Amino acid sequence: MGYEFDSQIEVLHEGGGRYSVDLAAGWLVGGGINGGYLLAVLGNALRAHLPGKPDPLAVSAHYLSASIPGPAAVRVDVRREGGSVATAAVELVQGDDVRITALATYGDFDRLGDDVRTTARQPEMPAVEDCVPNTVAPAEVRKFAPLMDRFEMRFHPGQVGWAVGKPSGNGVLSAWFRLIDGREPDPISLLMVVDSLPPVTFELGMPGWAPTLELTAHVRAKPAPGWLLVRHESRNVAGGMFEEDCEVWDSAGRLVAQSRQLARQPR
Amino acid sequence: MGYEFDSQIEVLHEGGGRYSVDLAAGWLVGGGINGGYLLAVLGNALRAHLPGKPDPLAVSAHYLSASIPGPAAVRVDVRREGGSVATAAVELVQGDDVRITALATYGDFDRLGDDVRTTARQPEMPAVEDCVPNTVAPAEVRKFAPLMDRFEMRFHPGQVGWAVGKPSGNGVLSAWFRLIDGREPDPISLLMVVDSLPPVTFELGMPGWAPTLELTAHVRAKPAPGWLLVRHESRNVAGGMFEEDCEVWDSAGRLVAQSRQLARQPR
Repeated sequence: MGYEFDSQIEVLHEGGGRYSVDLAAGWLVGGGINGGYLLAVLGNALRAHLPGKPDPLAVSAHYLSASIPGPAAVRVDVRREGGSVATAAVELVQGDDVRITALATYGDFDRLGDDVRTTARQPEMPAVEDCVPNTVAPAEVRKFAPLMDRFEMRFHPGQVGWAVGKPSGNGVLSAWFRLIDGREPDPISLLMVVDSLPPVTFELGMPGWAPTLELTAHVRAKPAPGWLLVRHESRNVAGGMFEEDCEVWDSAGRLVAQSRQLARQPR
Repeated sequence: MGYEFDSQIEVLHEGGGRYSVDLAAGWLVGGGINGGYLLAVLGNALRAHLPGKPDPLAVSAHYLSASIPGPAAVRVDVRREGGSVATAAVELVQGDDVRITALATYGDFDRLGDDVRTTARQPEMPAVEDCVPNTVAPAEVRKFAPLMDRFEMRFHPGQVGWAVGKPSGNGVLSAWFRLIDGREPDPISLLMVVDSLPPVTFELGMPGWAPTLELTAHVRAKPAPGWLLVRHESRNVAGGMFEEDCEVWDSAGRLVAQSRQLARQPR
């Protein structure tokens, strides 16, 4: 039996660079569909379209309008093929509206080498059982954000003040993460993981919707099975916008994805 | 009299979304033209093409092939217009070869507000006169890298071990920066500044050319006149690639640009 997440990102080839997909209502948060899930949808279409290059190395997405559940089209336009990497432009479209326009460079981790050497240290994080589960969220929050039923999230107890009206002001928000259905992480699902936590602005005392303008994700290695550690940080609010840096660490203690997004400050 | 840099990024409108430019040999480094300068060229074409939105907020560029001095074409395709921001696809082309494909979201800092509130701290840096000038580089280095004559760079004396064969291994490289001709920084020139320092891998003991696969720059405010402080850091070398994070601080102590690139590890 297949996993829920795999069916939700499934794309159907319509010929040429055209794919169709049915965007899952289960990834709604407020009025729109979660941008990370959408990035994984695009990532899955690119994987289908770039033979021999299954893995996203760098994906840069500019978000143009909010997506709604239901049918959508993905258009892929390969800009360079050959050598160890390929680059393509990709768009997500519903009706006449472009939802996302993105560029992606793909390769093959099995050929690039799966080794990670890093000076980065895994952030300090209490054990999973000592963290705050997303299942404690009130019913009205879960109704507003159905995506919370897609995964288990266990928040760092020292960075969850936003949930009880006492944000730390530190601009750091971390959680353990795994998909609810037991599907293990892979380079495609990491594109979703980097945008799955609540906006880091919650911990800066700015609750509310923070629409992404641009998000670039770098997948740095194939993740090991098990819980992922996801850390968001923002250091700079300026001109009505803020950046959100995300790191994803796998259960083997490796930094497997890095992303940065520019988002609008919640009103 | 105009500034050298303005003449080097000047674009000529050929009609529709097409512009022409003459890429300056003065920005060569090794076999190719500096990617930051090329990003500023694209940024200048976008500024010309997006009335009322003169400022790059987020620019994501995927580098497909090395550019050479001489004529090049810039093609702009607006993907969304209206509201406070506009998003466009842009490509740099020489003959049949696409050099760079990029996406950019532009706005107007005068309308977005020029205020910067940040928890980020300006990195520790000795005064300009206590730093190591790029003019001490040997003649053969300057011949290899004519771009070094485009700017004054004063390196942090504790992060310049690479220049004397003793890299620190810390993965941090910082310098004061200003254009040689006295042109003050602006949001367009910041697109060049984020890729103007030597690769941070020099300080990791990996000398040599580090081709950029992808670079995303966020300009966060209009820079004040004067010296800029530029800091590069890498924390993760994996699968033959590394990320290079760049921060640019202006003379008023504000974080005016942030960028991250994914580049190939030098051989």
